[in-house]
Amino acid sequence: MISVDEALTTVLRVAGRLEPVTVPLHEAVGLVLAEDVRAPDPLPPYRASVKDGYAVIASDGPGEYPLITESRAGNDGVDVMIIPGTVAYVTTGGPIPDGADAVVQVEDTEQVNDTSDGLRRVRILGRVSQGLDIRPVGCDIEKDTVVLKLGELIGNSETGLLATVGATMVKVYPRPTVAVLSTGDELVDPTTKHLNRGQIRDSNRAMLLASSIQERCKVVDLGIAHDREEDLERIMDTALSSGVDILLTSGGVSMGDRDFVKPYLGKKGTLHFNRVLMKPGKPLTFAELTSKSENQNCAKQVLAFGLPGNPVSCLVCFHLFVVPAIRHLSGWPNPHLQSVQARISRPLKTDTARPEFHHAILKWELNDGSGNPGFVAQSTGHQMSSRLLSMKSANAFLELPASGGILPHGTSVRAILISDISKFFASEIPAS
Amino acid sequence: MISVDEALTTVLRVAGRLEPVTVPLHEAVGLVLAEDVRAPDPLPPYRASVKDGYAVIASDGPGEYPLITESRAGNDGVDVMIIPGTVAYVTTGGPIPDGADAVVQVEDTEQVNDTSDGLRRVRILGRVSQGLDIRPVGCDIEKDTVVLKLGELIGNSETGLLATVGATMVKVYPRPTVAVLSTGDELVDPTTKHLNRGQIRDSNRAMLLASSIQERCKVVDLGIAHDREEDLERIMDTALSSGVDILLTSGGVSMGDRDFVKPYLGKKGTLHFNRVLMKPGKPLTFAELTSKSENQNCAKQVLAFGLPGNPVSCLVCFHLFVVPAIRHLSGWPNPHLQSVQARISRPLKTDTARPEFHHAILKWELNDGSGNPGFVAQSTGHQMSSRLLSMKSANAFLELPASGGILPHGTSVRAILISDISKFFASEIPAS
Ligand SMILES: [Mg+2]
Ligand SMILES: [Mg+2]
Repeated sequence: MISVDEALTTVLRVAGRLEPVTVPLHEAVGLVLAEDVRAPDPLPPYRASVKDGYAVIASDGPGEYPLITESRAGNDGVDVMIIPGTVAYVTTGGPIPDGADAVVQVEDTEQVNDTSDGLRRVRILGRVSQGLDIRPVGCDIEKDTVVLKLGELIGNSETGLLATVGATMVKVYPRPTVAVLSTGDELVDPTTKHLNRGQIRDSNRAMLLASSIQERCKVVDLGIAHDREEDLERIMDTALSSGVDILLTSGGVSMGDRDFVKPYLGKKGTLHFNRVLMKPGKPLTFAELTSKSENQNCAKQVLAFGLPGNPVSCLVCFHLFVVPAIRHLSGWPNPHLQSVQARISRPLKTDTARPEFHHAILKWELNDGSGNPGFVAQSTGHQMSSRLLSMKSANAFLELPASGGILPHGTSVRAILISDISKFFASEIPAS
Repeated sequence: MISVDEALTTVLRVAGRLEPVTVPLHEAVGLVLAEDVRAPDPLPPYRASVKDGYAVIASDGPGEYPLITESRAGNDGVDVMIIPGTVAYVTTGGPIPDGADAVVQVEDTEQVNDTSDGLRRVRILGRVSQGLDIRPVGCDIEKDTVVLKLGELIGNSETGLLATVGATMVKVYPRPTVAVLSTGDELVDPTTKHLNRGQIRDSNRAMLLASSIQERCKVVDLGIAHDREEDLERIMDTALSSGVDILLTSGGVSMGDRDFVKPYLGKKGTLHFNRVLMKPGKPLTFAELTSKSENQNCAKQVLAFGLPGNPVSCLVCFHLFVVPAIRHLSGWPNPHLQSVQARISRPLKTDTARPEFHHAILKWELNDGSGNPGFVAQSTGHQMSSRLLSMKSANAFLELPASGGILPHGTSVRAILISDISKFFASEIPAS
């Protein structure tokens, strides 16, 4: 049996990167850039006003001045030169007419109502220094600056940055297509109202599809395969030839006489491992397959994960191995899950043989028990691998060593983040 | 000018909740439940095997036993009674035949090849205790248990839980529809290759649309409105009557003579505030409008946010006010953003008059400078509100008090999380 680290290293060594694609900016959000992006022009591209007010010559000082032009955008005031003793009306973000070297904000001026000479006039109340409230050309972004680099994740603000430099088509790593199959004669569709003897509803498929979508993957729902070799082969072969990048099965990897997933993967490709020293998730199987689709001659890599059938084991393996694989395929420079330290709120017993990944709810506390702010981890209770309720609300796995002892309350342990903690906390229901 | 807290309290007081809708489970992921969900049957619904192996009578002990049935799923072995001296083959998750009271895993057995009497036989090698590797009926979920409560967020594991109890149609709070408009004569579409004098590309719209989609909202792109009162009115009136829940504008809220957003909002609805004591984001405006769409007689609430035109101010206001509003409309019991404490990696100057929301990159460090693990915050540099680059890679706003001083390096400050830190860290490019 190999360790979790060895297994993950294997997965990441085997996994390639998907071929970059060029997509419209709005489709690129959440993806990783596959090229450097430069600014084709400076920002601002012209001297721009920071305020609504008057473009002046700073050395003129306070006094009453005629308004010789208005400059809001475009070619407003383009032929006008501000000369000593004159001012121009300007608005936030608009161009500063030539000659002016400062802006006096409207709050520091007064309108003059006497316009007997046909010119509007304004009273400048205070003295300003040269350059005040003018953004020089390129002060935000210089021309040719690399604003985003290959390997950077495009979030909301990066989207704004790309729009501003006119990068409306961007080269990114796509996300993989993930096909999900549940296996087991005991499984029925979740829509089944009345369960007959020996039947349970299939929960893994809905969970794996949702989890893959959460990782921004395209998904293919392969349904439920019965425990018959021909059924499994037929469905898997069809999936393979349909262009998927990742094939996820759950169930069929135990010691049963009709657990056909491992033999299938061994027969069709390279089986890299089929047992991992971890609790839960021991029967996890990983293989590299090759698909030759009809409309493309080149062979394509398919990563196949035979996930355990128990839902808790299944989701643990998805996070620990499939998520980093998805990230690697999608061009993430560092595909590993983020972990933090957290103090446990109650004593926890550790396994004697296998490191345990224990579902927990992390909360940020002003005092984590040590007197400092930090994460406090609350176990979700009995971790039996069939117990779906132990996954509810969990946002982390505590990584417990195989020390065969008891970790006292307050022990600091490594916690692997499995959901967005910025969203998680807020879903909590306030005590009523 | 009101404080940030007062402004947010006003937004949350004004905002209603959207009417719950019933949707298929796969569309409910990421949404908040609007009802309690109960388990209609126990899980497992039958006594189930934890292992692949043999269902036995524990008191029989080691020895050679005839295999009288196989029980994998469904009605396998339903009429068979395990009596002392007999065993049944069982697989993980399959039903335990009547009479058996323990399971011996296949690893602790041997096949017997002598089948001269026509019966397959197995050698049980060890002694097991009663109940071993049998999940009793309802041990994971008892019948009628409330597995998820109104107000809980449906994540990946909750999706599995809902599938298992057959909740394939669920009542949830929908997410609002957000319409986004940019205003300003200086703005041109991001697709514009060559900028003429006095033009910049519109970055706010792409950013606000991406941010709203990130919050799972439906979006409507209203384009760019020029600084003409009729233009703004026409576009806003059309948006209002098209069933949107939130109307976001950017720009047009300064002191300029063609800043028409505030007057429009004041005329069409109730203007609750139009200046907030914060840096950046001071001109933020919030109003409550009412739309009467043609195909529905009842009036509908529309929350309108006049966001500042500078992109940094715009995104700060989106996070601090629009995200909690979206969450409130979407049924989150606690719509507030999560914050943590972080130590600053360099000294930071604070403003004398307004609390500042300073873009920063939080990283988790094993030693945050105090000797303990914790978040370290690195400023993204000059925070000028037009400087898009100061938002790049930021995952938090540091909340700096209006103390008009210098916070020394290592000071612990409140950091408001604005993106998924579990995803953020991993996008970092390793030093080469
Ligand atoms: Mg099975
Ligand atoms: Mg404007």
